[in-house]
Amino acid sequence: MASKESLRVDRYWRTVRQATMNPQPDDLVTNSQWDVLTAEPRGVDYLEVDADGVPALWLLPHGVAEDAPVLLCIHGGGYVGGSMFTHRKMFAHLAKAIGARALAIDYKLVFQGGTFPTPVVEGLTAYQWLLDQGVPATRVMFAGDSAGGQLSVTVQLRARAEGLPLPAGAMLISPWTDLEVTGESMVSNDGNDALFSKQWIVDMVAAFLDGTDPRSPEASPVQADLTGFGPLYIQVGDQELLLDDSRIFAKHAEQAGVDVRLDVFADQQHTFQMAAGLAPEADEAIERLAAWARPKLGLG
Amino acid sequence: MASKESLRVDRYWRTVRQATMNPQPDDLVTNSQWDVLTAEPRGVDYLEVDADGVPALWLLPHGVAEDAPVLLCIHGGGYVGGSMFTHRKMFAHLAKAIGARALAIDYKLVFQGGTFPTPVVEGLTAYQWLLDQGVPATRVMFAGDSAGGQLSVTVQLRARAEGLPLPAGAMLISPWTDLEVTGESMVSNDGNDALFSKQWIVDMVAAFLDGTDPRSPEASPVQADLTGFGPLYIQVGDQELLLDDSRIFAKHAEQAGVDVRLDVFADQQHTFQMAAGLAPEADEAIERLAAWARPKLGLG
Repeated sequence: MASKESLRVDRYWRTVRQATMNPQPDDLVTNSQWDVLTAEPRGVDYLEVDADGVPALWLLPHGVAEDAPVLLCIHGGGYVGGSMFTHRKMFAHLAKAIGARALAIDYKLVFQGGTFPTPVVEGLTAYQWLLDQGVPATRVMFAGDSAGGQLSVTVQLRARAEGLPLPAGAMLISPWTDLEVTGESMVSNDGNDALFSKQWIVDMVAAFLDGTDPRSPEASPVQADLTGFGPLYIQVGDQELLLDDSRIFAKHAEQAGVDVRLDVFADQQHTFQMAAGLAPEADEAIERLAAWARPKLGLG
Repeated sequence: MASKESLRVDRYWRTVRQATMNPQPDDLVTNSQWDVLTAEPRGVDYLEVDADGVPALWLLPHGVAEDAPVLLCIHGGGYVGGSMFTHRKMFAHLAKAIGARALAIDYKLVFQGGTFPTPVVEGLTAYQWLLDQGVPATRVMFAGDSAGGQLSVTVQLRARAEGLPLPAGAMLISPWTDLEVTGESMVSNDGNDALFSKQWIVDMVAAFLDGTDPRSPEASPVQADLTGFGPLYIQVGDQELLLDDSRIFAKHAEQAGVDVRLDVFADQQHTFQMAAGLAPEADEAIERLAAWARPKLGLG
């Protein structure tokens, strides 16, 4: 059973769903306040920086070396919401647990002109900027949730196409991987998922793709050639419409010879890790991510 | 009439009031999420620091000189809530508008042992730490809201008693100044104030004072000898139970020869400046504070 603390995620998503279907001008809790779910990690500095035109935020846990490995953190929000600030605290918990620096980035949302492939290009720009700072690719790991999980894959595809070295791996939290929206969990978890309806996902895909084929391997991770990808760790809640996006993608990556780990968390909602510092399931998930990532980044 | 954006403050306070009277374990919006009211100011770095044992957060707007004047920012929350993080964005808007650095501090709340005079002592420790960093008192201005407005006065009293130089002035936002709770607005604004009941204020005073006389001049700004104080700028909403706390204190300070400005904002609630970046009234209030403070800090 979900802890009462992690039920805050459930309640938050129901509130966002309600607010999306029936917008109120004075809503206090909307997608832009996602971070009400997350405890302040403390002991972390936050420095805004321009990553070659891409707004970004350094998350620097105290005690972490100046040349420590870097998580490139890409927030979710269905390409319609979220920012490096809504996810600041969640990614800072992760960086602290790993003992890494993190660079959280913004990218244009659909209403800002951020249809495919703009956010992919911006993610690549930020990655290139990191490499240009002298951080070797082997000391970079991608981390993203939801649409940011998708970008954690598609940015790598674009990096490979442009001849850049790939990062040491990627951590995907409730990633959005199948732009054809074919997963059976779209039906079987209807009503269990506190946030999504299938129609809403279909509508968001259409808005993001803006005419691009949903089977395009540059856009849809389940269609992509993952040859040469570093290890992937996927976490997903079993209540999600997007549950099968994780399962299908994990199988797809395995078939390409990628080292994949998939953890399905019982009784958990989309991106339940946002309750980091408050809910035991979120803290457990963060700890597992950290234990998985540390050796891959050369940390003890 | 209040803008629809500033009505978010009204709705937030009603939610907090409700949650305080009838706590729900899964409340999404509580006193600890005060910052949902405030837009992200952007262009500001945040560095946690230990100010001689007092947790503190540097708010460093980009483009501001390393030796720029400093706002010592003391958050409100009735000594039962709030933190340097709940008020991070509001104080950062203020620092940006002034072109100053800011040091926001935490102090112990009542449930952490922070009864009088502990928060006053901690505020003084942070001020002394600032002076020890080589910041001259003439380049420091205090800023505080609600209980933090009270501390912006009582910390100065203690500084003077210990022979320290006083800061260049103080900005008090809806300050809590009369610990006897005698203001007529306690009655006349009953029902207009979205947050407070008089009984709640009386209870918070009793918990904070923990036996200290509410007429004690070290605890209650309206009883204090303000001789030698720098200029004060007080802002308050006309809907507040605490409205007369501002009026009575402004008169008291004037009689002590202090340069005082009091602005009462029509149709506004307690600490409506928390809606900075979203509500025009909050932005106007921040702008007035900045225009007032700049010349006093030697800024053009």
